[in-house]
Amino acid sequence: MSAAQQVDFIRGSTRMFGIVGDPINQVRSPEMVTWAFNQRGIDAIVVPLHVRSDDFERVMPALMHLANFEGFILTVPFKARALKFADRVGAQGRILGSVNQLVRRADGGWSGDMFDGMGCVAAFRRRNVWIHDKRLMLIGLGGAGSAIAIAMAAEQPAFMRIYDPDPARCAQAKGHIERISPRTEVQIGQPIVDSMDMLLNASPVGMLDDPNLPISASTLPPHLVVFDAITKPEDTPLLGLAIACGCTVIRGREMMNGQIAKLVDGFLDPGAVAG
Amino acid sequence: MSAAQQVDFIRGSTRMFGIVGDPINQVRSPEMVTWAFNQRGIDAIVVPLHVRSDDFERVMPALMHLANFEGFILTVPFKARALKFADRVGAQGRILGSVNQLVRRADGGWSGDMFDGMGCVAAFRRRNVWIHDKRLMLIGLGGAGSAIAIAMAAEQPAFMRIYDPDPARCAQAKGHIERISPRTEVQIGQPIVDSMDMLLNASPVGMLDDPNLPISASTLPPHLVVFDAITKPEDTPLLGLAIACGCTVIRGREMMNGQIAKLVDGFLDPGAVAG
Repeated sequence: MSAAQQVDFIRGSTRMFGIVGDPINQVRSPEMVTWAFNQRGIDAIVVPLHVRSDDFERVMPALMHLANFEGFILTVPFKARALKFADRVGAQGRILGSVNQLVRRADGGWSGDMFDGMGCVAAFRRRNVWIHDKRLMLIGLGGAGSAIAIAMAAEQPAFMRIYDPDPARCAQAKGHIERISPRTEVQIGQPIVDSMDMLLNASPVGMLDDPNLPISASTLPPHLVVFDAITKPEDTPLLGLAIACGCTVIRGREMMNGQIAKLVDGFLDPGAVAG
Repeated sequence: MSAAQQVDFIRGSTRMFGIVGDPINQVRSPEMVTWAFNQRGIDAIVVPLHVRSDDFERVMPALMHLANFEGFILTVPFKARALKFADRVGAQGRILGSVNQLVRRADGGWSGDMFDGMGCVAAFRRRNVWIHDKRLMLIGLGGAGSAIAIAMAAEQPAFMRIYDPDPARCAQAKGHIERISPRTEVQIGQPIVDSMDMLLNASPVGMLDDPNLPISASTLPPHLVVFDAITKPEDTPLLGLAIACGCTVIRGREMMNGQIAKLVDGFLDPGAVAG
């Protein structure tokens, strides 16, 4: 009967945020973004909200009417379909046509943007690796890769060579990059490292037990900065080779931490999402 | 960058439950019912869902479509309005015309019932105080009081005298009691303790800093069992007098614990709510 018969991590006044996806069991935001809130001393929680794909257009507006929910993270398969629920969309979300965050502003409207690629840029910055005027090779232009392409372009590199097995993705990403950074020279072509400063992998090659490299190479120049968006394993075959060659490596986990920081920033200051 | 950058109390696969109310900041179920789940070794959480009163009929069906939410607790002002969302309603919910719990069954339908009064009965049982054949004085027939009246009636006491300043409430509660327990003699009238075995207060008299007693009395017979539904303060003026007079006292906190146990039982076995 003591007053201790209660948990200390959730109460009626806790600030509420949700991650909306289908399926939901595998999402990591509840434990990771909640941790980031707690690290900042904020009583807030991110809860999993499993909305079936067919229900999204009907259920999402109702979730946005929950008066104590201040924002949402959107994940598969809702990033593009969530765009229509934002009355203000940030530059990267507009170009990609999708958002991974919706935040209620003080005026009651909703701002949205796509922070996936910005998390990658944030990871580079935290390591004091600057992208401006550099030469980049980017492999993989799916959801994460196209977001990374756009976020990197916003940093105005001198040169970007991009590759994906799907020519349509390549053409679309080239157009996006040129629109964001007219001064960046864009090339479509097979992965190479000659004359490059940075090699970024956003393809699934090397994920889990895949022993393959996303590039035909047996050595890498030691000045190369090598990034891999894959989080499992932490050291992919590509990163293993890069470490062996003395390259600077930036891991998928660092991008994820950058994304989490961007999400928390956005939740706490909706004006930072799309002012 | 370590794997410890996450909390351990919420993840994508956590079993989700919500409490729906307006306002929401003051509710205690998130920390208390979540604690009860954790005590039973279950990875589940109760989160606060603030639905504005005007939005309830539109938002509630959407919440019931969240595939990872298994059930809801309803609080002020939604207990009566939630009744229509249950396709099966337990006996006490049917009589009261309101439910405080909705649970999704395996067949996809929703069962509902009102457990407020049953929590009071559970508290008496835990103290080995039996209501059957006893004589009860019940003061206060609002939401909690009418639920207690019905739950007590289901235990078939010999006699119940009930009091509320509102005659309509008295008449309605009398009808409910007689319907549930034809063998119980029911009387409406001012609070008395002569010839009573139990005195139950479900009125707000004595709450917080209120120094008043809900009954005109300077002493109470020591054989009397005295219950007060109020949780703040833990020892109301009524319970203070009862303790001074050597009575057995049962506190609002014990009723709350009984309600929590009933809610957890219902969430884990929807068949127990309304089979």
